[in-house]
This record gives sequence, structure tokens and C-alpha cells, in this order.
Amino acid sequence: MIRIAVDAMGGDFAPYEQVKGAVDALNNDKDLYLLLCGDETLVKAELAKYQYDETRLELVPTTQIITMEEEPAKAVKTKKDSSIVVAYRLLKEGKADGLVSSGSTGAVLTAGVLSLGRIKGISRPALCPAIPNARGGITLLCDCGANLECKPNYLRDFAIMATAFAQSAHGIKNPKVGLLNNGTEDHKGLPLQQETNALLKETVGIDYIGNIEGRDIMYGDADVVVADGFTGNIAMKSIEGCGKTVSAKMKGAFKKNWFSKLRALLVMDIISGIKKSLDYERVGGATLLGLPKAVVKGHGNSKANGFAVCIKLVAESVRGDMVGKIQSMLEKIKEQERLALESATSTVSDGAQE
Amino acid sequence: MIRIAVDAMGGDFAPYEQVKGAVDALNNDKDLYLLLCGDETLVKAELAKYQYDETRLELVPTTQIITMEEEPAKAVKTKKDSSIVVAYRLLKEGKADGLVSSGSTGAVLTAGVLSLGRIKGISRPALCPAIPNARGGITLLCDCGANLECKPNYLRDFAIMATAFAQSAHGIKNPKVGLLNNGTEDHKGLPLQQETNALLKETVGIDYIGNIEGRDIMYGDADVVVADGFTGNIAMKSIEGCGKTVSAKMKGAFKKNWFSKLRALLVMDIISGIKKSLDYERVGGATLLGLPKAVVKGHGNSKANGFAVCIKLVAESVRGDMVGKIQSMLEKIKEQERLALESATSTVSDGAQE
Repeated sequence: MIRIAVDAMGGDFAPYEQVKGAVDALNNDKDLYLLLCGDETLVKAELAKYQYDETRLELVPTTQIITMEEEPAKAVKTKKDSSIVVAYRLLKEGKADGLVSSGSTGAVLTAGVLSLGRIKGISRPALCPAIPNARGGITLLCDCGANLECKPNYLRDFAIMATAFAQSAHGIKNPKVGLLNNGTEDHKGLPLQQETNALLKETVGIDYIGNIEGRDIMYGDADVVVADGFTGNIAMKSIEGCGKTVSAKMKGAFKKNWFSKLRALLVMDIISGIKKSLDYERVGGATLLGLPKAVVKGHGNSKANGFAVCIKLVAESVRGDMVGKIQSMLEKIKEQERLALESATSTVSDGAQE
Repeated sequence: MIRIAVDAMGGDFAPYEQVKGAVDALNNDKDLYLLLCGDETLVKAELAKYQYDETRLELVPTTQIITMEEEPAKAVKTKKDSSIVVAYRLLKEGKADGLVSSGSTGAVLTAGVLSLGRIKGISRPALCPAIPNARGGITLLCDCGANLECKPNYLRDFAIMATAFAQSAHGIKNPKVGLLNNGTEDHKGLPLQQETNALLKETVGIDYIGNIEGRDIMYGDADVVVADGFTGNIAMKSIEGCGKTVSAKMKGAFKKNWFSKLRALLVMDIISGIKKSLDYERVGGATLLGLPKAVVKGHGNSKANGFAVCIKLVAESVRGDMVGKIQSMLEKIKEQERLALESATSTVSDGAQE
């Protein structure tokens, strides 16, 4: 049984959509056990609306909420009975294997690091959303805003973590990894990209295909795109803005007059098929990589469907032993570094003997 | 009469589309005089296909071409009779007021700076493409790749130049300027964005609206979006990739079977209207800001229509005295700095008198 702590109070439509999404996820996966953290009265009232297996759902009453406006570090430290802090406590105490929240990104990140710490050997945790791509699959973009100022080894860790995540949660056997840059040639980019490109080339355990450009994110040649959090954030939101603009233009054009409205009815299925295939709610929220447990941050405006996908994503990450995969990849790299050091030392001593 | 030097040999479809585009531009603007730099035989053969006012078009024979693969600085220095170098020579000698090329970006940039130098007081030239936005207008994104590593005063200069360009070439009276960042609050971003945000707030002559996010580029709240060249490049190409992906998805969905093909015919006008309104060829190439003359770099894969728009863009920049506007804005800033210094000095001497 996979046990997931659910923050029922985080998000624009909490707890209504969160509770509905949790029930949906529960009904779709008989191997799931959910611990809903939230206001007892509100959550109970919502739960009463649905049919579900009550032996696999537990309400963990909480009395506080961390809002989007609060300073994350301060809120996490003072609001000990907030839904997100309590949810993390369940993870820490071993009562749950994973966590889902649509609350403030800052709070989810801060509470996560403060209560669980990092996987040993990982430099920084990172946010990794999935972006629907042209091939009908998804492209993972890591990092998207958790770390603005980065060093090459942070990006190497992002590549490792996102590779393990792609394998365990998305079933991509050998994820191709690209580095987001302003061109494909080796000399492209700022020193960060140039050094990271060199480092990724010699990193064991990942399938590095080299520099890729902004346009390649959605083409889907790489399964994992690695970037510093600032650049990743700009890319992700630029894509979001473009997608929403095209969508709004379509709506406007088809609603222009009675004749266009009539024709909209005729192609409705085609248009909504395209929209659905590119809908980011379909692919869940951003996974917080680098913690010793699986954590997904849903979109603030998640509806039940999107939230249920987030819960499924956490369940798959647990089932696929994402954290274990990250750890064994780190060990391989450590071993590689040890061997390289040994060989360097022996070369030096060989030189000394001559 | 506005005189424009045209690189007829740069671009994937040169000189065919370039010559056709030049003739189109000439026929649409009776106040234009074009100097076509290119292979005499090839260009003459193309020109022979079209009707145009021969008194306003001059062929300047050149014998060399700089390709996309060549190292720009070396190519520009050694290929003195290449179409792009000759075109710039016409500007330097005062025989032309502006230049258009769809050749290698590096070569257009390098040859420009080497032959013309910069506008006095401008720290760095920048590339400024126009992106069609949700409001049916355009958003100027400056810089998009000419300067990867930037300082706050570079970005201030980009804001000034793009403002003058928006006013003179695009007829936007009071362009709103935004700074591309990972959030709208003042504390957001790396030190570069934080310092630039503070600097832009006190810059005279621009209408600064603060930090904006990646998604806002296409929403069109800002007419000018300022960024370092690395970030701007990632944003521009991420948008391009999203647009092309949506377009490909549409094509695929409507071509799926005979029934969808039939329905495609019924909505063809609506779909192509949307495509056209978001087509970047419609809004021309990237303007190279910071040189003492108006220069536009067309897309490498420009067709005649797109190339004609680039020529129009240069003509409008010359007509609207873009360079003069930049210079007078720089003078205002200098005056502001002088006054600030004076007031600081007088405060110090006041203090000394007490």
C-alpha cells in the first residue's frame, strides 16, 4: 500500500477540488492510502459528497493555513499546525511515503527542506514540471525556479534527479538529457552552461545529448531539459504565455459571429483534442526533486483532475523507487570520481618513481 | 528619398526571395531607393523577372558570400568583397541610410560594429526582434542574443534604444517597458535583474512598468521587454517552439482522415487568420540597435514577404529618426546625471560651510 499525505487546504479552489481530486485518485488506484491534512469540518463536508473506500482514507485535522502572501520561511516556522507542515510531519514520522500540495511553492519547498533535509550527496533540491511536447509525450524541465544562482554541479544533480524521475514515474527507460542553451555548439552560453556541458558529457548514468535551444523544449528531442532555475522559469512561463495566447486567439476567432460559432461546433472535437494534448494539467504539477521522499507541487489553480494526476505522479514515483534510483546513481558517480582520483594519484606516483 | 543597402546574398533562399522581396518593398514605397549588393549575374537574372521602377534600384556587384558556418570576425575581415561587408561600406560612405540582411547574425553584428562603430554613449548594440502578441500588436524583446553577459547599464541602454525604435518604426507613442524576470516583485531575480530594476525606475525618458514574467511577453502588457541576451534568446526560442508545435498539432489533427480534412476546409479562413496574426514573418526580423544607422537582420529562412517587411522596418526607422531619438534620450540621461552630481556636490559643500 502506498501512503500519500495530501495537503487539502493549499490551492485556489481548496479544499473542494483537492478533496474531489483525492477521492478520484483513490478510486482509480486500489493500492493507495491517503492521509488528508486539513480543516476537519470543511474536509468532512466535502468527503460526504463522494463514494470511496473509507478504509483507505484518513482525515488528519489541522487548524492553520499558509497563504500565498506569507513569507514562506517565517510561516513554516510559526504555523506548526498548518496543513502543509503537518503533511510533512507525516512523512518525517514514516507515516506517509509521499506528499502532494497545491499551496505556495515557497512554503512547500521550505517546509520540505526543513523537515526532511536533502538526499545525501545532492547539492540542491529542484522543481521539475512536465511540459507536454510535440511527440505526444512530456519533456521534464529541471530546475524551474527553486535555485536562481547555480553552479555546474547543481545542474549535474538536476540531470541525475530528473533522469531517475523520468524512469520511475514516467516509464522512460533511457531518458535523453539536454542542457538549455542559446545554441547547440559546445562554445555556446555563459560560463555556467559551458562548464555544465563539459561536466554532463562525462557524467555516468545519464544519456546526455548536448546543448539544446529554447525551441527544442517542446519538440521533445530531449526527455529531460536541465537549466538553472532562473532560465528554466523564463522558458516555462514563456511557453505558458504562448500556449494561452494561441488558445485565446482561437476562442476569439471562433466566437466572432454566428457563422464562425456554427463552424466551431463542427470542429469542436478536433480543437479540444489538441488543447487536451497540450494541457499542462494533464501532466500534473512540478515534482520537487532532491528530498528523500516523493513530493509534488500542484498548480495553484489545480482542479480535481489535475490534482488527481499529481497524486498519481507521487504514487508512481514511490512505486518506481525514484529516491533509491537517485541514490544509486550518486553512488556510481562517487565511484567514478574515486577511480579518477586513484588513477590521477597513481600517475603522479608513477611520475615520482621515474 | 530613403536609401537602403540590401544584402541580396544572405539567407537560405538568397538571392531569389531577397530580390523578390526587395522589388515588392520598392513597389510599395515610392520614397525608397535600394542598393542591391550581390552576385551580378544571379541578381540580374532575378531582377529580369519583375516589373519595378529601375531609376530607384541599383545593383552593386559583389563577388563573395559569408556563409552561416564561417567564424564571423574572421570572415568579415578577410572577405572584403562579400555582399554584407560591401553593404555596410555603402552606409559608412553615406551612400545609404539603412541596411537589411538575412545572412549570418554574427557577421551582420560584427561587420556592423567594425565598420560603423556604436552610437556615442551606448554601451553595447543589441538584437531586438518583434514578437506578435495577444493584443494583435507586437512586443519588442531586447536583447535576444548579441550580449550574453550583461551589466545593468547595458540593459538600461537596451530599454532606451528599444523605446526609440518602438516610437519611430512602430508608431507606439509611449512604449511601456518591462524587465524580464522570474516574478513581478522588486526582490525577484538575480543581482542583475534586481539592480537593473532599480536603475530603470529612475531612468528618464522611458515608461517603466517594472518586472514582468515570461508569460507576459505574449500577453502584450509591455511594448518593450528588456533582458540580457542569454535570457532573451531562451524566451524567444521557447515561444517559437511552442508556436510551431501548436501549428504542427493543428495540421496533424486536421489531416488525420477524410472527415477531418473536409472540416478543415470549412474553417480554413479562421485557422489561417490566427496563424497569420501570430506569424513572426509578418513583423519582420530583428533590428540591430546601437549602430549609428538603421539595420535589420531578417530570418535566415525569410521568404520574399518577410524580407520586404524587413526593408519597410528599416525605412520606417530612418523616417522616424530612430538614431536621433536614441541620441536625444541619451543626452537627457546625461543631463539628469549631471544635475544629480551637482546636487550631491552642493549638499557636500553646504555641509562643509556649516
